[in-house]
Amino acid sequence: METDTGALPKKQDFSEWYNEILWRAEIMDVRYPVKGLYVWFPYGFAIRKFVYQHLRELLDRDHKETLFPLLIPEQEFMKEAEHIKGFEDEVYWVTHGGTTPLEVKLALRPTSETAIYPMFALWVRSHADLPIKIYQIVNTFRYETKQTRPLIRLREITSFMESHTVHATWDEAEIQVESEIALTREFYRNLCIPIIISKRPDWDKFPGADYTIAVDAIMPNGKTLQIGTVHHLGNHFSRTFNIQYEDKNGEQKEAYQTCYGISERCIAALISLHGDDKGLILPPTVATFQVVIVPITIGKRHEDVLAAAGKLKNDLENAGLRVTLDTRDLRPGAKYYWWEIRGVPLRLELGPRDLDSGKAMAVTRTGEKTTICLANAAEDTTSILTGITDAIRAKAGEHTKSHLCTTHTMDGLDIALNEGKVAVVHWCRDRTCGDTIEEKANSSLLGTEVRSEYIEATDGPCIICGKPGKATLVGRTY
Amino acid sequence: METDTGALPKKQDFSEWYNEILWRAEIMDVRYPVKGLYVWFPYGFAIRKFVYQHLRELLDRDHKETLFPLLIPEQEFMKEAEHIKGFEDEVYWVTHGGTTPLEVKLALRPTSETAIYPMFALWVRSHADLPIKIYQIVNTFRYETKQTRPLIRLREITSFMESHTVHATWDEAEIQVESEIALTREFYRNLCIPIIISKRPDWDKFPGADYTIAVDAIMPNGKTLQIGTVHHLGNHFSRTFNIQYEDKNGEQKEAYQTCYGISERCIAALISLHGDDKGLILPPTVATFQVVIVPITIGKRHEDVLAAAGKLKNDLENAGLRVTLDTRDLRPGAKYYWWEIRGVPLRLELGPRDLDSGKAMAVTRTGEKTTICLANAAEDTTSILTGITDAIRAKAGEHTKSHLCTTHTMDGLDIALNEGKVAVVHWCRDRTCGDTIEEKANSSLLGTEVRSEYIEATDGPCIICGKPGKATLVGRTY
Repeated sequence: METDTGALPKKQDFSEWYNEILWRAEIMDVRYPVKGLYVWFPYGFAIRKFVYQHLRELLDRDHKETLFPLLIPEQEFMKEAEHIKGFEDEVYWVTHGGTTPLEVKLALRPTSETAIYPMFALWVRSHADLPIKIYQIVNTFRYETKQTRPLIRLREITSFMESHTVHATWDEAEIQVESEIALTREFYRNLCIPIIISKRPDWDKFPGADYTIAVDAIMPNGKTLQIGTVHHLGNHFSRTFNIQYEDKNGEQKEAYQTCYGISERCIAALISLHGDDKGLILPPTVATFQVVIVPITIGKRHEDVLAAAGKLKNDLENAGLRVTLDTRDLRPGAKYYWWEIRGVPLRLELGPRDLDSGKAMAVTRTGEKTTICLANAAEDTTSILTGITDAIRAKAGEHTKSHLCTTHTMDGLDIALNEGKVAVVHWCRDRTCGDTIEEKANSSLLGTEVRSEYIEATDGPCIICGKPGKATLVGRTY
Repeated sequence: METDTGALPKKQDFSEWYNEILWRAEIMDVRYPVKGLYVWFPYGFAIRKFVYQHLRELLDRDHKETLFPLLIPEQEFMKEAEHIKGFEDEVYWVTHGGTTPLEVKLALRPTSETAIYPMFALWVRSHADLPIKIYQIVNTFRYETKQTRPLIRLREITSFMESHTVHATWDEAEIQVESEIALTREFYRNLCIPIIISKRPDWDKFPGADYTIAVDAIMPNGKTLQIGTVHHLGNHFSRTFNIQYEDKNGEQKEAYQTCYGISERCIAALISLHGDDKGLILPPTVATFQVVIVPITIGKRHEDVLAAAGKLKNDLENAGLRVTLDTRDLRPGAKYYWWEIRGVPLRLELGPRDLDSGKAMAVTRTGEKTTICLANAAEDTTSILTGITDAIRAKAGEHTKSHLCTTHTMDGLDIALNEGKVAVVHWCRDRTCGDTIEEKANSSLLGTEVRSEYIEATDGPCIICGKPGKATLVGRTY
């Protein structure tokens, strides 16, 4: 596959850079002959594998993994009124098996509440069955009519983690919501992605939820990308699907529920936040290869260098690192370029003179040059990789901090938006004031929305009416 | 979930035993409201996870994992004539997105040749791009009209591993077929499942293949279950999908291909072959828990026993073992019964007297009683688990050997079939003789088929006409 020709667009032209990097770094092939469906290249799939492996490790502490069917019969799908309203325009319907029309139409899950909750109704009998905390990682489907984008807006979401929990009380479900948020923080911290936690306004919550907590990242172009949501479902679904339990006193009670999702948008954020003009930059935790070794075999000691490079690879792999040794018949410069585009965090260069000195040149994808001692290769490398993780996290943190701008005036809002930032303003949560903010924001920058209550910020007077208000995110979004 | 009441059917009533064990050992819930679709319980899902993790490890040596879309546009699906004939009655069609009819109907993949090969046509340019060896583990769909059975005959195959390779020559593709067979042998050896490798007759090969190698297990009721297939596709698909490469002399050549599949039937065989009248018996490699520790806390030293059991669990987990400590408020006997049904290979019982002696009672699910030394717990346990694996493999080997019966007479065939065995007879491969064998076999036992050329057996004279013939499997099948 020749994916490696011509110059990469600059990252400041983010949309072009993003499309090109998916191709050039072999993440996804967008040439599949159906709109909104894409093919994972092996290199990209490996990143997906490590990202979801990490997510599984976190979930497995407190949830159990399961797998439910993709196809949901129409009568179950249509049970919860608000839920249907939220999804009816977006659902793919299977209507035929072979040439035979099906008696009952089958929906491709857009999300699995209506597949899972009829089973929960069978599983939950007594308080002793609670809590139930399960998750699955599956493909889900949305008939998107907006412009589709790989990893961001898809018709087949290939990698949807959805967790579903059942509890005895509303309060216990709320504690679970907090627990899922803490898990999400840990997950994204390990991907070096700074996140903003906010509470969606009522008109933007999950169809059928009491409330929705959203997790967003700020992309390089200043748009927010929602990369996770946790929903307190109250007893809406348990009423609809009849999920009841007998409490200790023998009384029948309605259960309370939460659900929680993370899709491959986490990988869109990973790629977008960390990459630069040279290509991807992958945090070592989820990099396809953490280290590339490039042997410099010019001159007589060709075999010696190759042998030492092979030994170095073995030493690092024995320490649990993912390493590739590039012995292709190419100039070293061409190899550097190849692996920079693909975001390998650390390059080790090993030439004849390094053999004599017992060292190898170490060049990080974040721009540092140093050496490792061959006799102590695994330890030195691990230490450099830790430094790379810190550097990637710090850079993404700065980006997010500098793109989040608290302001108390409409002029300040105007400036913030035009500088490609997400504004934080205080708002009394009255719809009229909200509409005024949105209208003025839109006259500054088209497509701006009053998004969400920013949980971690302090309260203040409404920017419009001066009454007590909550910090609220105002910006463009994907 | 109360799954644990009443007596388990005897294993000789295999069909009842199978259905009951899936439920009682918490493998699958069959109450999902669509025929042929089932829910993986967490306990069963963990077995699936370990089985496929092992399969991935084997595949990753020589293949790269990818992921292609589920939905295949009608025009691609309809390109290969034989392939369509093989699947047209079984394909689910998506016809609507929301309430809008789709311009192009989309098939849910029954298998992914027609999704993957248009991309191969883009990926393959030159001989340097070859070979390509990729795989994916995905859900696939068949609108089965026959009776459905969990893990065996499904409408959603939840766990289909399909490998697809592209080669420069027919011979290289054949070498790949051999390599996939070797991989399959290793996989099933580690699951302790004896397999029969055979070549399907022309009328039973994969639609569009040059030839098909099948992998079967003999189930407890004497029926064969196909648990893997490897297909040499020749250049049929590469012609249809225009997969060509430029060779070293600059000439355009057609590529040759193989494909290869293993579905969750591997888990059906695992459960069926190893289980007994008491429930599942899981080989340690893929057991949800490899060890259950049951503390015997009758009497005064309750806390001491629990502390020692906790320490034992830690010691074993630190050695990489999967362990559960059952501290529920139940009689030890009830716990034994519970974990026997679920097939945990080793039970360790720890009571007050064991603390004094520094030992724990070790009871294997295969019927051995011994002790482990607490000071040397991990090593002793690992050694016992190895013995369990050997015992499970030996028992399954005996079953298969005793159910495979070579015969040279029609009377012998009659007896073999009526004893619930798979007969091996020699056959000249002439259709008339084949039909005669099948007719007579069916008068002995309804549903018997002349199946497949048994590769590992020696040649001999045809049982009907006496001409030189190949060993051929005759029996019932799923």
